[in-house]
Amino acid sequence: MTNWKRRHILSLADFTPDEYNTVLKTAASFREVLSRKTKKVPTLQGLVVANLFFEASTRTRNSFELAAKRLSADILNFAPGTSSLSKGETILDTAKTYWAMGTDLMVIRHQEAGVPGAIAQALDHLGAKVSILNAGDGQHEHPSQALLDLFTICSLLDPVNPRWELLQGKKVAIVGDILHSRVARSNLWSLLSSGAEVHLAAPPTLLPQLFSNWGKDTHPQGKLVLHWELPPALEGADFVMTLRLQTERMRAHLLPSLREYHQNFGLTHDRLQLCQPQVKVLHPGPVNRGVEISSELMDDPAFSLIPAQVTSGIAVRMALLYLVGVGNQPLN
Amino acid sequence: MTNWKRRHILSLADFTPDEYNTVLKTAASFREVLSRKTKKVPTLQGLVVANLFFEASTRTRNSFELAAKRLSADILNFAPGTSSLSKGETILDTAKTYWAMGTDLMVIRHQEAGVPGAIAQALDHLGAKVSILNAGDGQHEHPSQALLDLFTICSLLDPVNPRWELLQGKKVAIVGDILHSRVARSNLWSLLSSGAEVHLAAPPTLLPQLFSNWGKDTHPQGKLVLHWELPPALEGADFVMTLRLQTERMRAHLLPSLREYHQNFGLTHDRLQLCQPQVKVLHPGPVNRGVEISSELMDDPAFSLIPAQVTSGIAVRMALLYLVGVGNQPLN
Amino acid sequence: MTNWKRRHILSLADFTPDEYNTVLKTAASFREVLSRKTKKVPTLQGLVVANLFFEASTRTRNSFELAAKRLSADILNFAPGTSSLSKGETILDTAKTYWAMGTDLMVIRHQEAGVPGAIAQALDHLGAKVSILNAGDGQHEHPSQALLDLFTICSLLDPVNPRWELLQGKKVAIVGDILHSRVARSNLWSLLSSGAEVHLAAPPTLLPQLFSNWGKDTHPQGKLVLHWELPPALEGADFVMTLRLQTERMRAHLLPSLREYHQNFGLTHDRLQLCQPQVKVLHPGPVNRGVEISSELMDDPAFSLIPAQVTSGIAVRMALLYLVGVGNQPLN
Repeated sequence: MTNWKRRHILSLADFTPDEYNTVLKTAASFREVLSRKTKKVPTLQGLVVANLFFEASTRTRNSFELAAKRLSADILNFAPGTSSLSKGETILDTAKTYWAMGTDLMVIRHQEAGVPGAIAQALDHLGAKVSILNAGDGQHEHPSQALLDLFTICSLLDPVNPRWELLQGKKVAIVGDILHSRVARSNLWSLLSSGAEVHLAAPPTLLPQLFSNWGKDTHPQGKLVLHWELPPALEGADFVMTLRLQTERMRAHLLPSLREYHQNFGLTHDRLQLCQPQVKVLHPGPVNRGVEISSELMDDPAFSLIPAQVTSGIAVRMALLYLVGVGNQPLN
Repeated sequence: MTNWKRRHILSLADFTPDEYNTVLKTAASFREVLSRKTKKVPTLQGLVVANLFFEASTRTRNSFELAAKRLSADILNFAPGTSSLSKGETILDTAKTYWAMGTDLMVIRHQEAGVPGAIAQALDHLGAKVSILNAGDGQHEHPSQALLDLFTICSLLDPVNPRWELLQGKKVAIVGDILHSRVARSNLWSLLSSGAEVHLAAPPTLLPQLFSNWGKDTHPQGKLVLHWELPPALEGADFVMTLRLQTERMRAHLLPSLREYHQNFGLTHDRLQLCQPQVKVLHPGPVNRGVEISSELMDDPAFSLIPAQVTSGIAVRMALLYLVGVGNQPLN
Repeated sequence: MTNWKRRHILSLADFTPDEYNTVLKTAASFREVLSRKTKKVPTLQGLVVANLFFEASTRTRNSFELAAKRLSADILNFAPGTSSLSKGETILDTAKTYWAMGTDLMVIRHQEAGVPGAIAQALDHLGAKVSILNAGDGQHEHPSQALLDLFTICSLLDPVNPRWELLQGKKVAIVGDILHSRVARSNLWSLLSSGAEVHLAAPPTLLPQLFSNWGKDTHPQGKLVLHWELPPALEGADFVMTLRLQTERMRAHLLPSLREYHQNFGLTHDRLQLCQPQVKVLHPGPVNRGVEISSELMDDPAFSLIPAQVTSGIAVRMALLYLVGVGNQPLN
């Protein structure tokens, strides 16, 4: 049915154009399912999806959970607060336990970079036919978020046939705490490889100079420009991605104040006048209203793609679960 | 199938006789389903019910959850402790996120009065076809509890055809912390409109004089009497509803002691001798045994409707989810 | 379909040979289901399983939950942190509430010995047709764990036809904190009754002399030997069960240090040379690596049955839910 080969979805660093387009195409077909009265398909019936969220999350966990339910999978939720971790079990032993229970797909979020990848490697080594989906690991990657951003943008550019090539030549600005953002990193891979022109904007404490070398080796065709102020990043932009500002950054003295941050890097209707007239704004959520973006702009359907991103999340996560899940199923 | 028009169930203040009877009739038909071997119907298959319990609750959440499962809906649970709220997201943004994910019905509990209503208004304004069910908001209302109380009482009066008119002329006493009780408020609406004679009994600190004006404007046919002691409220009563006493009230100096409260307002077999011989006792749970009601009375099936209330809860919540859920479904 | 008579599974103290073999046989048939592409059967469709875990647990709760899902039951989870217990409701009232909601099977874990049994007795007294499965109560019993251990061992001895008699004459060592272990107690019942030779090994603070009388009255055929050092217990052993060491034991001065404990009672490849060459090691999990067992031994598939135990857990718990659940169903 599909020629998908990748067992785990851990990072977008080595995603191929074919893979991006297969995800987009599959998500588009699930979006069609979601427009029906009965929004379920029996595709993954009898398979078990375990949500191992070592780092708490409601939004992403519920999005994966609903995607799995709409594919008729069974779901196990791992609750970190009440878990064996407090009893001294290692993370890998927890994952092996879920594997031994019969889990087919594990959706893993962890505060440390590399944990989903390490679990995938260990389970592969044991011959387990389990797929790992990285739902965010430290400051490393958040592939499903970047793929839903991609799907949201490409669906806007061509609702019938969203495809990766549509991004070629578009100017995309990414604004905010790039240094600490796994969302930014995953998006950089998909954007750089698609031929978009990527402009990063943030205060220097959140955007070190070394980011200018990002992807030089692996994505030499990528176009990346750094700015320590907002206006040049916005100028003529087709899409602006804002990132969530962790308020912890204030306490770490990386930023003076939320008010000053908003004054310099917050998106408003006024600021968007520098962009293309059709410019759209994205945010991975949850939003600090009045910090990364003004409340008015966030709620303006003429500019904000934020609800569309959430909706896309279900279709894209259904696509990811489907692509790795069907690949793993024995042909009975 | 039904001429139900109301999209949200937020309050009983403006419920019509027809609406009360439609809920009772629908609940009676689901009670029949619950007596079968396979207690499920496919009515809401493919629909998503999100339980947004900003205030923690196991009993009410599980009751709505089981009702939704028996209608074959998919369920998302919002866990306040691990949520985006701690990340600064507004309540309304949380609700909008669940809407964007594809939620069809939201069951909302919040410690502040008016939150479910405000969310309903905002989503209506956005053109969302989402139904909100108030599962308790501050000291405002708890409509599904009052409706299950109504169903429990009317089913006792006529098991085959429970209907709202049966309450006419019955004497119903409501005893306890009326001032702070959303259960009492919702029950007052259904009882006053049904033509029952309602007697409130509590210490003056928990039952201010102003309650005597309750419903004067909207339910002029209602009969409401206040008592600052228990016996006159019980005299000749057909039904006695006791309310849960929050132990916090002691600390706020609204009550001298639990022992004294029980002595003056606690229900016992002895006290019930003032009532009709067939009198029945209700309590929304969880019960403080030996405070609102004696342990012996609570466990006496000749008087206690408490287990029947819990059972009614499933049928009534199935009815509510069905009535608003079927109304919202596109005709495919 | 089966002649199973027991409504509750609370303890293995009075399990009969027939009952052990019915569980083993039923679990074997579900293991076959779990090897299919679609690992679900509709057996318990429409029935409700409530997980009442007053003591937190992820592993056992998820195992029961997945077992119930694969039988197509509906599941309610009771979350102790957010529950009515903090509101002063008694445990029994909580159980009665779940019964009144329509729960068919309750899986109960509690930190106090006897709670599941007390609930079962009270519900029986009320005429409730509810089954209670003890998922661990204090230091009393953990029957499903001992039954999955039995199934794991017997399946190794005869994969096609695992049966209780296979244990006759086998030497089984149980090592570790026997005094505080409900797993050890439940395993003692099944092992003593099967005719295995059971050797207990632990420091004297964790293995009082009185254990030598264990089962003397009820299982006079049982062979039980106590050791306050490890080597004689391992000598010629066919199976070694290690128990989790609660680190709280150190603080209670029952043990000098984890390092010394491992030196004296920890299992290693070296130590196993005293056993039969085909010896296998079991552990109920979660494991403290390097304490009860060396990390290398735990990960060595030639010796470790630990993943097999987790896998057996699903089949055995499906069997238990099936046996008591089908017995409770009205013949529609």
